[in-house]
Amino acid sequence: MMVIDIPNGLPARVDTPLPGDPRLARLSLNQRTTASWSLPEAVGGAVRAGLGSIGVWREPLAEFGLEAGKRLIEDAGLRVSSICRGGFFTDPAAIDTAHESNRAAIDETALLGATTLVLVAGGLPSGDRDIAAARSRATDAIARLLPYARERGVTLGIEPMHPIFAADRGVISTLRQALDIAEEFDAADVGVVVDTFHVWWEPDVLAQIARAADRIVSYQVCDWITPLPADSLLSRGMMGDGHIDFASLTTAVAAAGYIGDVEVEIFNAEVWAADGDAVVSTMARRYVELVQPYL
Amino acid sequence: MMVIDIPNGLPARVDTPLPGDPRLARLSLNQRTTASWSLPEAVGGAVRAGLGSIGVWREPLAEFGLEAGKRLIEDAGLRVSSICRGGFFTDPAAIDTAHESNRAAIDETALLGATTLVLVAGGLPSGDRDIAAARSRATDAIARLLPYARERGVTLGIEPMHPIFAADRGVISTLRQALDIAEEFDAADVGVVVDTFHVWWEPDVLAQIARAADRIVSYQVCDWITPLPADSLLSRGMMGDGHIDFASLTTAVAAAGYIGDVEVEIFNAEVWAADGDAVVSTMARRYVELVQPYL
Repeated sequence: MMVIDIPNGLPARVDTPLPGDPRLARLSLNQRTTASWSLPEAVGGAVRAGLGSIGVWREPLAEFGLEAGKRLIEDAGLRVSSICRGGFFTDPAAIDTAHESNRAAIDETALLGATTLVLVAGGLPSGDRDIAAARSRATDAIARLLPYARERGVTLGIEPMHPIFAADRGVISTLRQALDIAEEFDAADVGVVVDTFHVWWEPDVLAQIARAADRIVSYQVCDWITPLPADSLLSRGMMGDGHIDFASLTTAVAAAGYIGDVEVEIFNAEVWAADGDAVVSTMARRYVELVQPYL
Repeated sequence: MMVIDIPNGLPARVDTPLPGDPRLARLSLNQRTTASWSLPEAVGGAVRAGLGSIGVWREPLAEFGLEAGKRLIEDAGLRVSSICRGGFFTDPAAIDTAHESNRAAIDETALLGATTLVLVAGGLPSGDRDIAAARSRATDAIARLLPYARERGVTLGIEPMHPIFAADRGVISTLRQALDIAEEFDAADVGVVVDTFHVWWEPDVLAQIARAADRIVSYQVCDWITPLPADSLLSRGMMGDGHIDFASLTTAVAAAGYIGDVEVEIFNAEVWAADGDAVVSTMARRYVELVQPYL
């Protein structure tokens, strides 16, 4: 099974870390990595593996209930590293609906005691080819959302998306561009999400991470694998299975001053088909081997 | 059939241009658009459609014979807009073989009277995760190849590749980065290839095109379509079928001073399965509608 193997010639240099291992304190299970798990199952899996944190998606949270979810996560002793996700405000025809949804997402973020709402800009509206205008609308929407978020103590985290998604999911394509937008606002209000999958290829990514400094509100890790799976939305791989150098990126994120949780977010049909506990176990081992030493 | 339709709400505002139409003078059929055609078939198709130029791939040229191919293209009255392609010099274990192949490609470019050899950098060697070092090796390889090309009057054209290919085909990912490298050399020696598919999403693409000025040695057009086909290498679409705004990009390329041919290069299984003449006819119509007015 893919998630158990160590392909690409990487030896299994570490044992699976046990619950209580302090190296796991900053590791967060993003719920999308174990997509078949409900919120209670994901919380249980994170606790069994000894993780410190969980990245919560709004849909499974709503399914379980907001207040009940809040108690469940608190009782388990987990932090909420981020709420996924808001944004999707590039379509002028749907902008009011988008804002309503984003305000609810901010409420949920505040309720769970998380500090960051991850924002994905959204793609080009159907038939619209003006990507510069779509980017401008995303910036305007952030400005509009900001007072509501500030009142609730929530930082908005702009997540640049790999250019493979520029047309249909996220028109903000580089960390440099996300920072150009974020810097129009106070650092306490608008930050950036550094996801290795999205930015690993960026020519000056290390310089942009240094520039980001205290604007980094979330660090997410997974790998870029080839050949790309047929569904490009599910093309993320377990750390170590692909081409990303986690050492240099993680070192840069740490040097920038980031002290928050590290989320593992993997959209991948093979990972989703595997046993959840096995996925979390592999994830913890790869994290301790490839990411944690550089924090 | 996809290549005949005008999807995405674009009306068929123009008739298929007839051979002799001066608007076709700068249109070039890149051989990869009609991949099933041999060199004589591609030359014949280009002539039947009234195009001025052809983008030649080395493999079908070698199959037909270099000298015979040269005569065939000359007798048909076509220019050779570019030779595809050289490069692939990021693997240290294969660098001498790559240089041998690139020198042969330069010879062929000179033989056919083309001015530009398109260079694709190559991806990460197996198990290698140091993309910065791979980029540096690509720059070194260009420097090494340059004297040989200069002696033969051939300009090397660095083609930045969409970041979807950063791991496995081309580590030079943006027009900005291609220009950073090209500007280490004389403009007569090293230029850049602007391919809409690769650079349309780049946040400051219009500024980078302006910066490129006389370094633009080839302008290639095709569309970014969604959903992305399962094989990402075959994910290019006919102009008008996707999300790219050809008006702004073409206007910028023209304003930069580019007066060369415009190649249509489409890797797409559906296009390849269609009748070659129908593909060229659709291509000519879409070009006259979406690209040529902005040149």
